[in-house]
Amino acid sequence: MTGAKNLTRKILETHLASGNLTPGEEIDLSVDQILVEDATGSMTALQFEALGMERVQVPLAVMYVDHNVLQIDDKNMDEHRYLRTFSARHGVFYSRPGNGISHYVHLERFAKPGELLVGADSHSTMSGAVGTFAFGAGGLDVAVAMAGYGFTLECPKVVGVELRGRLPDWVQSKDIILELLRRYGVRGGLGRVFEFTGEGVTSLSVTERGTICNMITEMGATAAVFPSDERVREWLAAQEREDDYEPLRADEDAPYDEEEVVELSELEPLIAKPSSPGNVVPVREVAGTKTVQVCVGSSVNSSYEDLAIVGSVLRESIVHPAIEMTVTPGSRQILDTIARSGVYGDLVSSGARMLEPVCGPCIGVGQAPSRGAPSVRTFNRNFPGRSGTQGDEVYLCSPATAAATALNGEISDPRELGEPPVLEPARTNPAMDDRQILAPLPPEEAREIEIVRGPNIVPPPEGEPLPETLEGRVVIVVEDDVSTGDMAPDGALGMSLWSNIPECAKHMFRRQDPGFHDRALEWGGGFVVGGHNYGQGSSREHAALSPLHLGIRAVAAKSFARIHRLNLIAQGILPLVFADEEDYERVRQGDTWHMADVRETIAAGGEDLVAGSEAGEEIPLKVRLFPREREILLAGGKRGYLRDGRNAGDSRPS
Amino acid sequence: MTGAKNLTRKILETHLASGNLTPGEEIDLSVDQILVEDATGSMTALQFEALGMERVQVPLAVMYVDHNVLQIDDKNMDEHRYLRTFSARHGVFYSRPGNGISHYVHLERFAKPGELLVGADSHSTMSGAVGTFAFGAGGLDVAVAMAGYGFTLECPKVVGVELRGRLPDWVQSKDIILELLRRYGVRGGLGRVFEFTGEGVTSLSVTERGTICNMITEMGATAAVFPSDERVREWLAAQEREDDYEPLRADEDAPYDEEEVVELSELEPLIAKPSSPGNVVPVREVAGTKTVQVCVGSSVNSSYEDLAIVGSVLRESIVHPAIEMTVTPGSRQILDTIARSGVYGDLVSSGARMLEPVCGPCIGVGQAPSRGAPSVRTFNRNFPGRSGTQGDEVYLCSPATAAATALNGEISDPRELGEPPVLEPARTNPAMDDRQILAPLPPEEAREIEIVRGPNIVPPPEGEPLPETLEGRVVIVVEDDVSTGDMAPDGALGMSLWSNIPECAKHMFRRQDPGFHDRALEWGGGFVVGGHNYGQGSSREHAALSPLHLGIRAVAAKSFARIHRLNLIAQGILPLVFADEEDYERVRQGDTWHMADVRETIAAGGEDLVAGSEAGEEIPLKVRLFPREREILLAGGKRGYLRDGRNAGDSRPS
Repeated sequence: MTGAKNLTRKILETHLASGNLTPGEEIDLSVDQILVEDATGSMTALQFEALGMERVQVPLAVMYVDHNVLQIDDKNMDEHRYLRTFSARHGVFYSRPGNGISHYVHLERFAKPGELLVGADSHSTMSGAVGTFAFGAGGLDVAVAMAGYGFTLECPKVVGVELRGRLPDWVQSKDIILELLRRYGVRGGLGRVFEFTGEGVTSLSVTERGTICNMITEMGATAAVFPSDERVREWLAAQEREDDYEPLRADEDAPYDEEEVVELSELEPLIAKPSSPGNVVPVREVAGTKTVQVCVGSSVNSSYEDLAIVGSVLRESIVHPAIEMTVTPGSRQILDTIARSGVYGDLVSSGARMLEPVCGPCIGVGQAPSRGAPSVRTFNRNFPGRSGTQGDEVYLCSPATAAATALNGEISDPRELGEPPVLEPARTNPAMDDRQILAPLPPEEAREIEIVRGPNIVPPPEGEPLPETLEGRVVIVVEDDVSTGDMAPDGALGMSLWSNIPECAKHMFRRQDPGFHDRALEWGGGFVVGGHNYGQGSSREHAALSPLHLGIRAVAAKSFARIHRLNLIAQGILPLVFADEEDYERVRQGDTWHMADVRETIAAGGEDLVAGSEAGEEIPLKVRLFPREREILLAGGKRGYLRDGRNAGDSRPS
Repeated sequence: MTGAKNLTRKILETHLASGNLTPGEEIDLSVDQILVEDATGSMTALQFEALGMERVQVPLAVMYVDHNVLQIDDKNMDEHRYLRTFSARHGVFYSRPGNGISHYVHLERFAKPGELLVGADSHSTMSGAVGTFAFGAGGLDVAVAMAGYGFTLECPKVVGVELRGRLPDWVQSKDIILELLRRYGVRGGLGRVFEFTGEGVTSLSVTERGTICNMITEMGATAAVFPSDERVREWLAAQEREDDYEPLRADEDAPYDEEEVVELSELEPLIAKPSSPGNVVPVREVAGTKTVQVCVGSSVNSSYEDLAIVGSVLRESIVHPAIEMTVTPGSRQILDTIARSGVYGDLVSSGARMLEPVCGPCIGVGQAPSRGAPSVRTFNRNFPGRSGTQGDEVYLCSPATAAATALNGEISDPRELGEPPVLEPARTNPAMDDRQILAPLPPEEAREIEIVRGPNIVPPPEGEPLPETLEGRVVIVVEDDVSTGDMAPDGALGMSLWSNIPECAKHMFRRQDPGFHDRALEWGGGFVVGGHNYGQGSSREHAALSPLHLGIRAVAAKSFARIHRLNLIAQGILPLVFADEEDYERVRQGDTWHMADVRETIAAGGEDLVAGSEAGEEIPLKVRLFPREREILLAGGKRGYLRDGRNAGDSRPS
């Protein structure tokens, strides 16, 4: 290996607290920035409080209220009031409801080249657009990082993605990430960071890069990183924080673990069909599909340019009578910019419903479509039911494709619109306005803050130290690619329960089997068996807290999604993989499993466990854990681990 | 009586099909305009379809989608698609979701001096602002009117309200209607039309008049009427429909059944405390009450001027950190106007959350506050739980009072803000844009429309002809002033069930007694006993369809709210009043009542019935019905009555 380094390695090196930057090894990293949003916020905050730290121990922590803002009953506002007073008390910035979607606001106001960000939201990867190493994690891991313990990560492989040429007319950066999803699917990015290089990078604005970084999560990847170049400097200057600019790029001839090339000029408009972001085809293959809804925006494709192209397509026209269309700006700043230019007026006149700058329909909080009726969205995920509708038919595409569809009432290739439009120039507010981000109070004032805890704010269940023997029944067997949305519910109704695990748990696996919850309680917990990519999608640790509440002690799967595996461990639930994947077929719901020598095996660093059934069958399982993960599981989860004096010694806040 | 006539009498005379304009007598009226909204829309439309009419038989009918638009699951969109295709098929204008709140849009685009409007929404009274005789009714009565049968009303008394002088600074038209509510309470307007006269009228804009007309409903009144004067002409000219103007006023020295005087110059800011619009006190009496939420807008106080005064108070400031604030424009036109002037920018910068121009929090569809936490709103109702939160604490006030409260974080008298603000002048779109109101198709095209019926669209239950004997148990005894919101649920969750009566009925009287629904089914229906003003508030006939579904055959109360009494009759449920109010105290839940000779008594025009209990107690009851009401009850409700050939004869579409 030459001395040349890729950008990912450079950033990781400057944050490395311990370990070696060898893919697959465990590394400890120092953390610069924390991003929390309200949906995962209560559990993050409650677990931070349990750590007993008076003030956050990182340079920057921001709490965004952008998810649970419909407020169909009193629960949402209880959360807001808890999170606002928690933030004021503990030194956290608080972005008020309506101020914008965390990922956009963070990119605008906080993200910095070369820094390391951990977010309690899987799309926190978006800040990679300015050369931040940014990734999502479960709430407890974020709380622990916020308390100054740093973050432990499996060192990823680095994939160098060379972007060549320029995008053709009507093809957008959304089509680049859809192309990668077409190539890699929803699992192909596991254990990888995607680092973008090449001349094509220069043609992409920071928000276009943000779209790619945000959705890298859908490939199971850890993060995506763009260089910090002149486009980043311009972006930061426009945000009146040019001082945060630092040029950063990979060295010439830097090595990558894997390499990939995308010829931008050869791309065409793409679309992910229901119900997986990996189900990508060219738009022309599904063109003509009659549609009932078009939604633009979400934590991707809510930038000024994204909305301006839609406004320009719809200008002087109206949204097709059979279509209901919504548009969500990414932030209050973007809302202000479209209002000052003609874009807002064009959209309102066309009949698009202008929603607040909040997550909204992207997470099924409002705008649920009719069952079985095609809904075309510029969002990042279309997992089954995520829209709030069981049996939904959600397509994911670029704003240009969405606009053409809204005009025609059926899925349409935007290239058929003819000459690309000239966008209204952005007219931004001459002064940046951060007054809706409440700054932390000075410590002496902060201590006086009384934290408001409404009845919906319920502390999470506690894990128990791993026993010598695990015994119980297989409560459910689920298929490949079940998402954390299948374990903790999306939608306005479901997400309003995320501050209350016993209520949240009632929805676990409801799509797969409405009897799961009651059976788990009746059987006193037991085992869950899954396929590949178990726990893909959102970082919500509620997908681990709910089974903890139900007495699930271990999950055996073919493979795990990265964040969910960490969440299971953090909550003291054992993630096991089948030694022989074909054994998955032998498992039946209701089987009783007996697993001996569990504690001893794990304490000794062993990898082999056996699930013995009543019928005498034996299923060999692997338990692959880093040393610290073993300690955490033996202690019954990360909270117990940190409370234990012996362990606090080697992981005291930095 | 001289020949001089008040304005109400003039309008009623021109619409009188039969009967005498004597207060308390039944009159048949011809109908010019129909207003329907989506919450009550499905039942109205389903019942219209059942009447078998291909096309509406009134000059104008408009369907507004403004209530059920959050779409937390698939039910709302099912309703939109049904109502859109129903409208296209049957000759109804369709105002798309996001185009505005029915009452504002109707005032802007359709309401005409001297016409008669029936709306499937209790606040349809708002159009009285331009001299329309406008009132709310249940869905079936509206469907019947839409089919050309006209409308039957108990001729109201006319109260002449003389407005003297001018409002002081910071006192608004909302304070005028709150003053009337302070004087009359929520029952004092029963059987009355309030007609406004005097020099003070001239100082009020059409939307200020609209606020008063809208909320006249909260007093139990039938309608409110303002003269059609120069202010109305200006309004219609600004709406590019000056041709619709016709000057209309009461004759000099016209007689009124009752008279009232309001000295505007003596008014001060008023506020309705939780949880009744009649619970009015001066703002100064509750000033200093810490508040968590301020909501501006709804079907009152969403006009340009209402929002501009709030924008001017908040300009350069931010909403108090402890407050969450929302602002709802009344219509897309108002949204456009505030966006073109500086008001929208002022509000967004202050931290107010800008909601779509839909009903929203006013009907508990979003923005529910924390339990027990004061929420200050410019809305028209604060019935318990209407906000979406059980145990809510909602105050009603003017935009000025709301703005002062948002600034200070506690209820505040706006007069303490000092000099009144100079409002940004409204900059309106030079061209009116009705493209979001889909016009009816020509009949030959309309017949080709296939009506989309999602699984949430369920035809209503059918009434049965009144039997000779009614026997059953008293399923519940409720207090005074129970609202139709207690019978058919408000809120995003509750209202999404309004197209499906069996589901809707599960919520009936849940606030009073969660066991009511199951008990009613178990007992096979029976009787409901209520206090005064039974069924106040919203016109929702779901409050009559739900008990019909549950087998309730009669309600005995001390008195009834006007619209709900008509809805009960329309669905074949007998409204009875206690001959001696004190007998209410003798009734106990679970009593078995036997009522003999019911059919015979009613057929003969008798008024006296007796509820005999098992214990031999007798409770004398009165059944006061107009002749046609008797026929309707004998036929098992209005649908059965109209299907009956004998009856169709005397009420054939005009």
